Amino acid sequence: MTERLTSLICATEPMNAVWSPRATLQRMLDVEAALACASAVHGVIPQAAVPAIVAACDAEQLDAEALARDAALGGNLAIPLVKQLTARVKAADPEASKYVHWGATSQDIIDTATVLQLRDALGLIEGGLDGLCATLAALARAHRATPAVGRTWLQQALPVTLGLKFAQWLDAMLRHRERLAALRERALVLQFGGAAGTLASLRDAGPAVSASLAKALALAEPTLPWHTQRDRIAEAASFFGMLIGTLGKIARDISLQMQTEIGELAEPAAAGKGASSTMPHKRNPVGCAAVLTAATRAPGLVATVFAGMVQEHERALGGWQAEWDALPDLARLAGGALAHIEQIAGGLEVNPERLAANLDATHGLILGEAVMLALGDSIGRLDAHHLVEKASKNAVQTGRTLHEVLADDPVVTKHLDAARLAALLDPANYTGEAQAFVDAVLASYAQSVAASSSQTHEE
Amino acid sequence: MTERLTSLICATEPMNAVWSPRATLQRMLDVEAALACASAVHGVIPQAAVPAIVAACDAEQLDAEALARDAALGGNLAIPLVKQLTARVKAADPEASKYVHWGATSQDIIDTATVLQLRDALGLIEGGLDGLCATLAALARAHRATPAVGRTWLQQALPVTLGLKFAQWLDAMLRHRERLAALRERALVLQFGGAAGTLASLRDAGPAVSASLAKALALAEPTLPWHTQRDRIAEAASFFGMLIGTLGKIARDISLQMQTEIGELAEPAAAGKGASSTMPHKRNPVGCAAVLTAATRAPGLVATVFAGMVQEHERALGGWQAEWDALPDLARLAGGALAHIEQIAGGLEVNPERLAANLDATHGLILGEAVMLALGDSIGRLDAHHLVEKASKNAVQTGRTLHEVLADDPVVTKHLDAARLAALLDPANYTGEAQAFVDAVLASYAQSVAASSSQTHEE
Amino acid sequence: MTERLTSLICATEPMNAVWSPRATLQRMLDVEAALACASAVHGVIPQAAVPAIVAACDAEQLDAEALARDAALGGNLAIPLVKQLTARVKAADPEASKYVHWGATSQDIIDTATVLQLRDALGLIEGGLDGLCATLAALARAHRATPAVGRTWLQQALPVTLGLKFAQWLDAMLRHRERLAALRERALVLQFGGAAGTLASLRDAGPAVSASLAKALALAEPTLPWHTQRDRIAEAASFFGMLIGTLGKIARDISLQMQTEIGELAEPAAAGKGASSTMPHKRNPVGCAAVLTAATRAPGLVATVFAGMVQEHERALGGWQAEWDALPDLARLAGGALAHIEQIAGGLEVNPERLAANLDATHGLILGEAVMLALGDSIGRLDAHHLVEKASKNAVQTGRTLHEVLADDPVVTKHLDAARLAALLDPANYTGEAQAFVDAVLASYAQSVAASSSQTHEE
Amino acid sequence: MTERLTSLICATEPMNAVWSPRATLQRMLDVEAALACASAVHGVIPQAAVPAIVAACDAEQLDAEALARDAALGGNLAIPLVKQLTARVKAADPEASKYVHWGATSQDIIDTATVLQLRDALGLIEGGLDGLCATLAALARAHRATPAVGRTWLQQALPVTLGLKFAQWLDAMLRHRERLAALRERALVLQFGGAAGTLASLRDAGPAVSASLAKALALAEPTLPWHTQRDRIAEAASFFGMLIGTLGKIARDISLQMQTEIGELAEPAAAGKGASSTMPHKRNPVGCAAVLTAATRAPGLVATVFAGMVQEHERALGGWQAEWDALPDLARLAGGALAHIEQIAGGLEVNPERLAANLDATHGLILGEAVMLALGDSIGRLDAHHLVEKASKNAVQTGRTLHEVLADDPVVTKHLDAARLAALLDPANYTGEAQAFVDAVLASYAQSVAASSSQTHEE
Repeated sequence: MTERLTSLICATEPMNAVWSPRATLQRMLDVEAALACASAVHGVIPQAAVPAIVAACDAEQLDAEALARDAALGGNLAIPLVKQLTARVKAADPEASKYVHWGATSQDIIDTATVLQLRDALGLIEGGLDGLCATLAALARAHRATPAVGRTWLQQALPVTLGLKFAQWLDAMLRHRERLAALRERALVLQFGGAAGTLASLRDAGPAVSASLAKALALAEPTLPWHTQRDRIAEAASFFGMLIGTLGKIARDISLQMQTEIGELAEPAAAGKGASSTMPHKRNPVGCAAVLTAATRAPGLVATVFAGMVQEHERALGGWQAEWDALPDLARLAGGALAHIEQIAGGLEVNPERLAANLDATHGLILGEAVMLALGDSIGRLDAHHLVEKASKNAVQTGRTLHEVLADDPVVTKHLDAARLAALLDPANYTGEAQAFVDAVLASYAQSVAASSSQTHEE
Repeated sequence: MTERLTSLICATEPMNAVWSPRATLQRMLDVEAALACASAVHGVIPQAAVPAIVAACDAEQLDAEALARDAALGGNLAIPLVKQLTARVKAADPEASKYVHWGATSQDIIDTATVLQLRDALGLIEGGLDGLCATLAALARAHRATPAVGRTWLQQALPVTLGLKFAQWLDAMLRHRERLAALRERALVLQFGGAAGTLASLRDAGPAVSASLAKALALAEPTLPWHTQRDRIAEAASFFGMLIGTLGKIARDISLQMQTEIGELAEPAAAGKGASSTMPHKRNPVGCAAVLTAATRAPGLVATVFAGMVQEHERALGGWQAEWDALPDLARLAGGALAHIEQIAGGLEVNPERLAANLDATHGLILGEAVMLALGDSIGRLDAHHLVEKASKNAVQTGRTLHEVLADDPVVTKHLDAARLAALLDPANYTGEAQAFVDAVLASYAQSVAASSSQTHEE
Repeated sequence: MTERLTSLICATEPMNAVWSPRATLQRMLDVEAALACASAVHGVIPQAAVPAIVAACDAEQLDAEALARDAALGGNLAIPLVKQLTARVKAADPEASKYVHWGATSQDIIDTATVLQLRDALGLIEGGLDGLCATLAALARAHRATPAVGRTWLQQALPVTLGLKFAQWLDAMLRHRERLAALRERALVLQFGGAAGTLASLRDAGPAVSASLAKALALAEPTLPWHTQRDRIAEAASFFGMLIGTLGKIARDISLQMQTEIGELAEPAAAGKGASSTMPHKRNPVGCAAVLTAATRAPGLVATVFAGMVQEHERALGGWQAEWDALPDLARLAGGALAHIEQIAGGLEVNPERLAANLDATHGLILGEAVMLALGDSIGRLDAHHLVEKASKNAVQTGRTLHEVLADDPVVTKHLDAARLAALLDPANYTGEAQAFVDAVLASYAQSVAASSSQTHEE
Repeated sequence: MTERLTSLICATEPMNAVWSPRATLQRMLDVEAALACASAVHGVIPQAAVPAIVAACDAEQLDAEALARDAALGGNLAIPLVKQLTARVKAADPEASKYVHWGATSQDIIDTATVLQLRDALGLIEGGLDGLCATLAALARAHRATPAVGRTWLQQALPVTLGLKFAQWLDAMLRHRERLAALRERALVLQFGGAAGTLASLRDAGPAVSASLAKALALAEPTLPWHTQRDRIAEAASFFGMLIGTLGKIARDISLQMQTEIGELAEPAAAGKGASSTMPHKRNPVGCAAVLTAATRAPGLVATVFAGMVQEHERALGGWQAEWDALPDLARLAGGALAHIEQIAGGLEVNPERLAANLDATHGLILGEAVMLALGDSIGRLDAHHLVEKASKNAVQTGRTLHEVLADDPVVTKHLDAARLAALLDPANYTGEAQAFVDAVLASYAQSVAASSSQTHEE
């Protein structure tokens, strides 16, 4: 069982796999193997040393418990890993063992491995975003015109459409996709500088080895090593944090709309999920709770990575090491939260009766503005305002609907016939640009899909 | 005197002006004035109402104390502002006063005003970044080849060049410039949605008014209102936080290099600045301290904005309001920290004697690797390693320099003549790719300057 | 108008006064005046110098703008303050001016002034806590037995009493009172150590002056100066943060219970407060929003103070200065949030009809457990469980009440007569220990009041 | 290998054991077993059901992987745990299986288990604090009078004694011990309320079962359940955070004093620890780095727990779950950081030559104040100030020591003979109250040890 208890409720298998201890070790070994190859190509180490090194770069062969024990001595995992790796190479080819880890510093290995894991994580997030965007687009389209209560300050305000709510979520996700693309450009770069970031121990071969290493790992080469310049990692943390923030907003809304007294939406039912045998009426928003957990944790994790940016000189103490858990935790929470919202949105239960009932909960008061505007055309806005205000208070006091009160008012009936009044008090007729906004977001989504598909074709 | 005590040490006049209470009110009034114009153009309000409204949109005329007092009642500043504005318009033109704030909700005004302030703030930051980049480029160029101690774990490690350190700082700043450009694209957009984000009260004129309003304020129009989608604000917060993080790293390094015992760098002297009459040897890193203060505060402020993203329904309670101080505080701290580093870098005192003395502090030990590599060509790397390791221990124990110990070793003298040995032990000869990295960053900077200048010409 | 926009909605006049720029300066001058007196008593400075110094220690006489301008040079406010103070003393008594600030360092003055402000702030918080506790006790007593829906996961779960909810809030407040008392003991201490915390410049008089100074300011004397040991300040920050957290929980609950669809509670009405002329049905939870704003901001501010604890050597750069705004902001937010909840609780509107209606919203399902337990006595718990589970599902499917379904079931009617069944389905009869818990908290409150009143008498 | 990479460098075996997945499950089972016993005592469940339940409450028997898989469905670990437990009991005694988890809700089990783990964690921390305090007391005593440079703003300021630095650390630790005691009183309490915190399903037996359960687990009973009142947990988080903050300050100081150019202190040497074969002069502050990592992470974790305090109604979604990892992470980091500082302090290497050399680095300038005060007695403070200021500048410009310059000044020699001048320029003679402060802290420590030992005897 995982040590991370929130991972029990907010994580995915593939994202866990990206950041598992085994994967972390393997990614470090991948870098060591690629380094040996790149160094041999440029004559820094003998070509003959490569096979033994590459063969030993297999995490299954390592004694992970010993690594864990020894990491504390040197202060990181790369030092004992290189030691074990060297010992294994030596057993197979003593000469080759002299060339393990040539020219690199621990942080080169750890940072580059992290970047490789980050690339995998961003790939998973991209897939999730694609799926979620498609689902939200379908929801927005399907409920483009479905009237729903718009709420401000947790109070009923004016009608909107349910599709507008989904379009809002989609719109934010489209921006996150843009950010993801920009992050990839900036963050998926090699780290390779040697002890003080000068590649001095490679003598003249530094640039060539660096270029080959980057190519072998399919990473971009940075202008120079970035051991204590952590803005790339901070940007990744921030991306995860922003994504989780938006997902948290969605989870908040769904869980509020799932309240027993509101009942407009529900997470999809699943055997054993969120149900209570003793309280059969309950449908706990278990997925939303997981996402809100992620949203409660993310700001502190982002702050940790940002705080760690203040690093000393060429390689630092404390700030760098603080990233080791914070970044993977953010990736895991982002992946888990995204999967939950994907799954919830994909099977979202919409309750039309409750949507309609809630629109009627104020007995028409949320449509006072519509009547006021219409009356204003005839009697002036100010008089219309006073009339509707009075009628609304009257309705509240007498327990009648606004419709009933207004239908009794001769000023109203003089200017608005019964059909017109009824139409004005139909929430479906007072959703403003809601549908146009849905269309605009859907168009923007279609464009984004087309752009990304043409980009894929070009590649 | 400001209420913000850290502003006393980390702020700039122009950035303070952007976010002053007066400017905040004026920006809100700018939005109200532009709204009146845009609404009149599209016949939503009478053209005749515009002059009186526009004339009253002057913060000097407001009773700021009354606003402050009344803000608590409605929960924000826009509500009493609209009230006062309406009263002032009414005094001049009773008819016009009916059309104040037409179709807008408080948050439309506050958010759009914030975006306008953010635009000004980003303009200041851009100017500061341009200046700092130019200064750092000059420093990197000037000290491209100046040997300096590279330090890891706060311990001397290997030689670098001073220019490499400056180039590292510059490289990060170039990425911040890219982020700034992307942030502008995404964040500098209008907020205009009315009470529930549907523009319902504008009937058919919503899109037209929105477009005109955006144009008048020179803001982009978003796909749809974004009252409870705060990723744009979070991205701005994150940008400031990352910039402050990098500036904090620079301040940490300078303050460490200013230590009495190290003395390689010093903040520029200024009358009364950081000097102590009773301790004339002291040159306090007062500017660095201010920047480190900003760097200590920024992560918590970024976390606050991220935490606020989880907002309810169409307009929220708590999350939105938490941005009101956190975003301006971040902008102020970023502006102040940037100005400090600009000023420090612009007048940075470099002490060549202390740089040289510190390079010699280990009596040559930090160059053991250089000798080892050279010897390795003749006697094999492993033997060379053992030889240098032994010599180094010998030097430490006997208090001699590594040079002296090695010069006494017949194996060494057999393979390396005196001149070669001396050259190997000269830190200037063991800085690896330091100068090439400096050149690469300078080239990247030149490219970025050229790109931005051609962009300016095109505009 | 204040620069702090959230202060517009979450602050109190007295707390603002404690931390105003003017008060900050005056508190620093209070320390300078007390220092002069204490130093003279022990012959460190001439008695004759005291009157002029004390007379000049008046914030009204300072040029606050000049102070603000000069603070950046030295890095804090005390340096220019001492300069201005010395100049003013000199104008009145040139000889006396030599003895201003004798033996102290800037941080002694700033820290001790902050402690004095903190003492005032804690006094205000204590008063607020006393008032709030009394109000909550009255509410808990009044609604001790009022049935209300208990909700978990935002879903209806089981009945509770409204008084139990209030008792929960009160119980937490009683713990905050304990923490406040402990905080006072530890945090309200003098800071006085001179430049490096040794009081060296006072020669032998250090301890005597320190003792007199502490006495004059009615502060405890610490075992030794604590310039870079900030746990006391962190504990104060943490206290404010925890208090705000509890107040935020209360605000969350009230705002949820104020939702249009729930309507069980309402913030007291006040002219212009949270009302909307166009939406007369709305009663915005304006006070709760302010408290939730505080609760969104507090964690980041607490984190800032904690992050600042890592300070260098005898006096630090960055960590200390980061406290300057974070601690006052926390105090202000705590004071404002406390005042809001006091005011809301003091005039809380309870809607018995909606409480009852919501208890009935599931048509009895939330009482299934009560019936199950009763039936279990006769037919065994497992069979009872199955019976009630089936009946509940039946009720949901057929739209009948659980009462109706159960009354039709011969097994039920065999073991429970009509009166018993009705009683079991009355929420008032299934609130468990709710009333006992209320009594226990009230008893604990009474004890705490008695203890604090006897303590006051003793003093 | 652990999933928590920072645990590799900052953790202890015993603290890891407290929070391991296995221990977490076992603690939950301990609560279930105690609940069965307590319920049987009061006739709530048959006594005959107890043995089978207790026998099954063994974490070794659970299928942890299945638990992990199923936790997501119900949203926490207790739900599948109760299911598995029930199945295991059923296999042994079908009748007994009906009485598993009687009357409790998931959160009762999870919270109480967490409290039991917290108790263990606090026990470990207390032991660590005791050990560290003893070590620091010994260090303070040993170096009570050892002169050392006092540094402010990272600049040399005035002499202190090394013992004073250690006494400062000890003094803070004594306050943490007080906080620990208070935390125990408030936080180590039972959680037991049933689904909505009313114990309704226990009918009349609630209070009796609760009391017995608390007694069986040796926990205090709270006034009432506290499912959504999280101030106790926040206080625990805050305690860990404050302790880590102080430990971080110590690590910062030691790592700064370990700098190659300063070299006053060193972490104890250990085979393979922080040493570099290629850079034999390096002694990396590996332990300090681990502690600084903890200090970088703690503020964000504390903020997370504080943010989670805003919980909904009777049981919440998101805020509670966010504690699950944040609290254990804080405990682990606190335990790890404490162990590191214990180990470092226990073997701390003090380098008297470097201490002395650094005291002399300014050639006497840091003692100008001592001379000024002495001269002031004869020629007046102001003249003395000017004289020493001039002499100091002269010394800096001419490269002479302050001693040499002053010895050449006839005004000086007139009032201070050679021996006196030499004495004044001896740092050992200008450490003010340093030794008295050391004594005061040691006395306070002795008192605290006596008090806790007498308390232990009484128990």
